[in-house]
Amino acid sequence: MSRQYRVAVVGATGAVGEEMRRTLAERGFPVSELTALASARSAGKELAFGDQNIVCRELREDSFADIDLALFSAGGSISAKFAPIARDSGCVVVDNSSSWRMDPAVPLIVPEVNPHDAEWHSGIIANPNCSTIQMVVALKPLHDAVQIKRVVVSTYQAVSGTGVEAVTELQRQVKDISEGRGAQVAVYPHQIAFNCLPHIDVFLDDGSTKEEQKMVDETKKILGDTSIAVSATCVRVPVYDGHSEAVNLEFEREITPDQARDLLARTPGIVVEDNPETYLYPLPIRASGTDPVYVGRIRRDPTVRHGLNLWVVADNLRKGAALNAVQVAELLVQKNLIRVP
Amino acid sequence: MSRQYRVAVVGATGAVGEEMRRTLAERGFPVSELTALASARSAGKELAFGDQNIVCRELREDSFADIDLALFSAGGSISAKFAPIARDSGCVVVDNSSSWRMDPAVPLIVPEVNPHDAEWHSGIIANPNCSTIQMVVALKPLHDAVQIKRVVVSTYQAVSGTGVEAVTELQRQVKDISEGRGAQVAVYPHQIAFNCLPHIDVFLDDGSTKEEQKMVDETKKILGDTSIAVSATCVRVPVYDGHSEAVNLEFEREITPDQARDLLARTPGIVVEDNPETYLYPLPIRASGTDPVYVGRIRRDPTVRHGLNLWVVADNLRKGAALNAVQVAELLVQKNLIRVP
Repeated sequence: MSRQYRVAVVGATGAVGEEMRRTLAERGFPVSELTALASARSAGKELAFGDQNIVCRELREDSFADIDLALFSAGGSISAKFAPIARDSGCVVVDNSSSWRMDPAVPLIVPEVNPHDAEWHSGIIANPNCSTIQMVVALKPLHDAVQIKRVVVSTYQAVSGTGVEAVTELQRQVKDISEGRGAQVAVYPHQIAFNCLPHIDVFLDDGSTKEEQKMVDETKKILGDTSIAVSATCVRVPVYDGHSEAVNLEFEREITPDQARDLLARTPGIVVEDNPETYLYPLPIRASGTDPVYVGRIRRDPTVRHGLNLWVVADNLRKGAALNAVQVAELLVQKNLIRVP
Repeated sequence: MSRQYRVAVVGATGAVGEEMRRTLAERGFPVSELTALASARSAGKELAFGDQNIVCRELREDSFADIDLALFSAGGSISAKFAPIARDSGCVVVDNSSSWRMDPAVPLIVPEVNPHDAEWHSGIIANPNCSTIQMVVALKPLHDAVQIKRVVVSTYQAVSGTGVEAVTELQRQVKDISEGRGAQVAVYPHQIAFNCLPHIDVFLDDGSTKEEQKMVDETKKILGDTSIAVSATCVRVPVYDGHSEAVNLEFEREITPDQARDLLARTPGIVVEDNPETYLYPLPIRASGTDPVYVGRIRRDPTVRHGLNLWVVADNLRKGAALNAVQVAELLVQKNLIRVP
């Protein structure tokens, strides 16, 4: 019988944590025992794992003594503190926060794109930002073929990326507005129902947001090419689940829309939905609850020498977070890399 | 007493027609008599104009005999047929459809941008597409200062741009989904509630949509510069009113974000909302019901030699349609151009 692993999910009660538990079970990850960890407030809660119920425990410094692999999704400060503690206990960490992503000693992995980077991990592996993951899955085959020079991307990001409380806020605001009451604002700085907020994560000194900077930095690191220029505008829209992206690309060499469509359709993890005649193009409500990255609206941009436009959609909690983390864990199993060097 | 005009609103019962009646009244346009015209179905309906009620009449070939100025917003085929009939009756037409916009004999006017083009009208003046109007208002002062080379724009367009029936569809879908029922789809090819549709107007042979092509063609015509390259992705979002646009710009010459902010703030018709510290940036729910074009998120794009990103928002029924049409009419009054040459 092949090896089984003692797996912890840190932040097990959150939107991504819930999706991690579901994805581990659905994909039959070789779990001998699943440990659900969260804040003291959630300790004692019963959580689903496949057809079992497990009891959530409080995250503590000694939580990792008997764990082989920990999937973290409990926010940046928790990861900054506890990922090294877990690693020092001999546990391999796949971390979904932004804390470790740009650390040069930490690989940042999308399994379809840079699986080879798993080989040099030293106990912590970072899971990229949701909006970056789905974009680089679509960019990778095109970059390999004709070399991307520049990306201009505008995002249409769902509230589930913020967390369960943002989903509740959108539901409540929609109800209040439909019934003629004013919308209460708590999670976002402004009403999200029937609105667009060009503001995700904190603002930086140059006027961009951290979310936008993540798309710039993480894309270069994952594709292993600092020459790729990325300009991003990240916008929250009143969609429950599924991020969409309008991606404008400039390449070094010529590629036709048909060639791009063929390349993308042959790439594992991508589904091309691109038929104007039947009004077929990627939609967040259809992507929600599914695994692929969907690409459509593939068309030439004649305003640059070698240009294409794409529309890229994926479930931000699955491929954008939990599924990618579990796929990283599967990659570690395949390569026998669940060990702290 | 200065001259007053016999004014007709064609398509008076639609979302834009309603806004035209309201805007003419609010701005005190010199109307001696307002005639509301629509399809036979709407004839006899009472419609508001200021504090009067007027009775809607059926649009017919002889409707324009005693009219000086007609504002059309009844769709492309109505405009294609009736605008020449109105003009031949001696009536000046300001047309909000796409029928006449690219006709080289018809000026396409945004009063803040190209008022001089009013002078060569020969009875029909076209009102640009909503998504184009708000963008060119923001582009004009920057183009004059440092010459725009290339625009990459992604839109976030409200349902009111489609019409009253689309507003009702979003309301009904939101209610159905909130109450656990499936959403009925009628106006759009897919559910619009909690979704993003990368599809506005019909598809063209090159894979772009007519809405996207309008932004390309109309921008060049209004700015009077065919050298400006525009690549557009147009997306419908579940917002009732107010279009938003992520606009990426490449210029011929250097301009800093501060210089751009100053230039834009000094431009009539523009309000700059740009203070990350107080989470101030343009929002469609705040723009709705107001006249200006709002610009914010003004920041450098370091991926091209002279690059800037902007976030541009306006009320698509006001500045994007009815207000711009009434402003064109005001311009004609000022220049004494309400006469068919």
